[in-house]
Amino acid sequence: MSAQNKCSRIDQWILEKIYRAAGQPSVRLELRNSAEVSPRGALPVANIVIEDRKTLLRLLIDLEAEFGDAYSEGRITLEGDLVSALEILYGSISQGEHHGWYVKLVSKCMEYAQRNSLRGSRRNIQRHYDLNTAFYQLWLDPQLIYTCAYYPSSATTLEQAQVAKLDYVCRKLRLQPGEQVVDAGCGWGALALHMAQNYGVIVRAFNISREQILFARRRAKELGLSHRVAFIEDDYRNISGECDAFVSVGMLEHVGREHYRDLGSIIHRSLSKTGRGLLHFVGRNHPLPFSTWTRKRIFHGAYAPALGEAMQVFEPWDLSVLDVENLRPHYAKTLEQWLARFEKSQQEISEMFTPEFTRAWRLYLAGAVAGFRVGTLQLFQIVFARTACQQIPWTRAHLYTKEQHGERETTWMHATS
Amino acid sequence: MSAQNKCSRIDQWILEKIYRAAGQPSVRLELRNSAEVSPRGALPVANIVIEDRKTLLRLLIDLEAEFGDAYSEGRITLEGDLVSALEILYGSISQGEHHGWYVKLVSKCMEYAQRNSLRGSRRNIQRHYDLNTAFYQLWLDPQLIYTCAYYPSSATTLEQAQVAKLDYVCRKLRLQPGEQVVDAGCGWGALALHMAQNYGVIVRAFNISREQILFARRRAKELGLSHRVAFIEDDYRNISGECDAFVSVGMLEHVGREHYRDLGSIIHRSLSKTGRGLLHFVGRNHPLPFSTWTRKRIFHGAYAPALGEAMQVFEPWDLSVLDVENLRPHYAKTLEQWLARFEKSQQEISEMFTPEFTRAWRLYLAGAVAGFRVGTLQLFQIVFARTACQQIPWTRAHLYTKEQHGERETTWMHATS
Repeated sequence: MSAQNKCSRIDQWILEKIYRAAGQPSVRLELRNSAEVSPRGALPVANIVIEDRKTLLRLLIDLEAEFGDAYSEGRITLEGDLVSALEILYGSISQGEHHGWYVKLVSKCMEYAQRNSLRGSRRNIQRHYDLNTAFYQLWLDPQLIYTCAYYPSSATTLEQAQVAKLDYVCRKLRLQPGEQVVDAGCGWGALALHMAQNYGVIVRAFNISREQILFARRRAKELGLSHRVAFIEDDYRNISGECDAFVSVGMLEHVGREHYRDLGSIIHRSLSKTGRGLLHFVGRNHPLPFSTWTRKRIFHGAYAPALGEAMQVFEPWDLSVLDVENLRPHYAKTLEQWLARFEKSQQEISEMFTPEFTRAWRLYLAGAVAGFRVGTLQLFQIVFARTACQQIPWTRAHLYTKEQHGERETTWMHATS
Repeated sequence: MSAQNKCSRIDQWILEKIYRAAGQPSVRLELRNSAEVSPRGALPVANIVIEDRKTLLRLLIDLEAEFGDAYSEGRITLEGDLVSALEILYGSISQGEHHGWYVKLVSKCMEYAQRNSLRGSRRNIQRHYDLNTAFYQLWLDPQLIYTCAYYPSSATTLEQAQVAKLDYVCRKLRLQPGEQVVDAGCGWGALALHMAQNYGVIVRAFNISREQILFARRRAKELGLSHRVAFIEDDYRNISGECDAFVSVGMLEHVGREHYRDLGSIIHRSLSKTGRGLLHFVGRNHPLPFSTWTRKRIFHGAYAPALGEAMQVFEPWDLSVLDVENLRPHYAKTLEQWLARFEKSQQEISEMFTPEFTRAWRLYLAGAVAGFRVGTLQLFQIVFARTACQQIPWTRAHLYTKEQHGERETTWMHATS
């Protein structure tokens, strides 16, 4: 047997091992010019080509992390629809999900290195949200709402769906003019401004991303809402004072599972005796960390909890869960639209960042679409209240009356000014 | 100091100790002709009279259990509104909730003695549900629906609210004609019959209460639904075969917290790839067993889980939680109406049971009203589905369209017969 032949046989053996570790997905896997595996009895959804032997060996050690990095660096090329391929991969990997000791060790070390202490959280958040607001403006809606939208009908546009989401959150909270609201992890400020403008409440909005806070303050000024919305650059753990409603949209993923009780204690300390609140977050059906790739390249220190884990926020305190809604299909749709805009903005993005960055972010967005489609990711909205709160509606019908879709007659804009 | 005087002083000391253990509620506490404690700076809501010293001493050892037994046996009398007094007591006891080692030990022993093995469950269930159907007919609605009703408006009667609940459950499940449904813990059969009659589904309904199964079979025959609804006298752990929807209303409380995973495995084994399900159960804001009195006299082996505990049903399996609704105010109202009917049926009940039994059941019903009012008890409906289920509605608006309140135009009665 020639040396080349022997090499090819080893390549083939490794490739097949990787293919089995990935749960034998319906994709064709190839090591460029050397070995290949095709799915049995099914047409491959995509053709994944590993460009060199180093990548092949690394995939053997940490499949998910190396797939991400190699795809970003062009050491893996994918022919076919990226989202469809990832749907297939997520479906098959989660079936045979057994991380080796090495991946588990890396995952644990990463969890420690990226722990969400006061300083650690700031570092984790800045690495994602302080990238460049102009970059996010290329593919988010004009208000820069970077969380799951809500589509009352299939004809709703992204812009409408984001406003519908803001309104849906306000309705779930049953905000009343003059009430004090805390918005923990306020992003670029759209929800805080919407609440003040349309529901007449006073908002203190917290965020540790400086870029986002500065942007939000400018918008508040432009809208003439600076006297009603305070954008505070601080950690949720430093929130003081009382509020009637506590809302947090898209922050729990960054709190870290070791801090749910802390978040609960802040809510407990802040909420008035009749207070209500809402948490909106990416969750899971089962407890499972994000891949090491996601935590290394995209969301540092992030964790999406299963509902059982999220209950640690509420159960140690005088808080009662009233309503949980899973909006998973809405986030799949939101992300599809972000991804499409992202692809359309290739030119501008390539002028801002390296090709590796662009490919990594394409993989992240496509992976999120796939995750919400196949159900490895969920989106939960939890409404809660003090046990003694009497402002609990008798049914949820009020959320679905006609006025919901921006046809509300009264706005409370000047009610308390 | 005379012996009598000395005795009185000891009585007073014990009474005050009990009063503090109860969290200093706004009630007047008296040991007949000997000692008393009144709330400071507040008018007492009720006057609780302990009739003898033996009861006083027992209260010192196990407050909740002895209060229940002494009230039932007439060794404690209560002047004032029972529900209001219990609301005050629940509010104050839960604030200073510290069970001594003795109560904790009794509670643990009871948990073991009443464990929900196949045989244990049957014994536990029979002690409550096989009492006497005629008794339940005195104070439940005509269909004998012994779970929380759903009141779309405040004018809804108990009978209407129970039918509205059945319909609400069916709508949450999005039942389609011809589908196979498992009803685990079917009570006297009202839901199973409603689903078959109005949604055209085929139901297998399980229950280990013989009385209830016999009653349900008679009703199925009367309604001409025997070919569409099978009432099976068996444990949920013995459910086999596949179904499109798995529903369980008021059974999880009897499953026991050590068996949530087992229940989940049965659901996982039964549900088709596109299956959905609903659990409806009494829950808690925090993990906490029922009082030993409740478990000794009313619900043997019962446990009302916090949501975090209930997630153990779903999270080990391929199941996704879609919707959780807390219907606590609806159960307070349902129980108020049961209690009122119970009181009206004093004469008939006293002919069936001893005065002790009647008082114990009055205390149980009044205590449940109080518990749901003050929030020591919650009522959760959880909708779940297979992760791959595509029959998930885009929003929950369909639950609140006009046809909800019995105005549905189509019934599926003969769709599959």
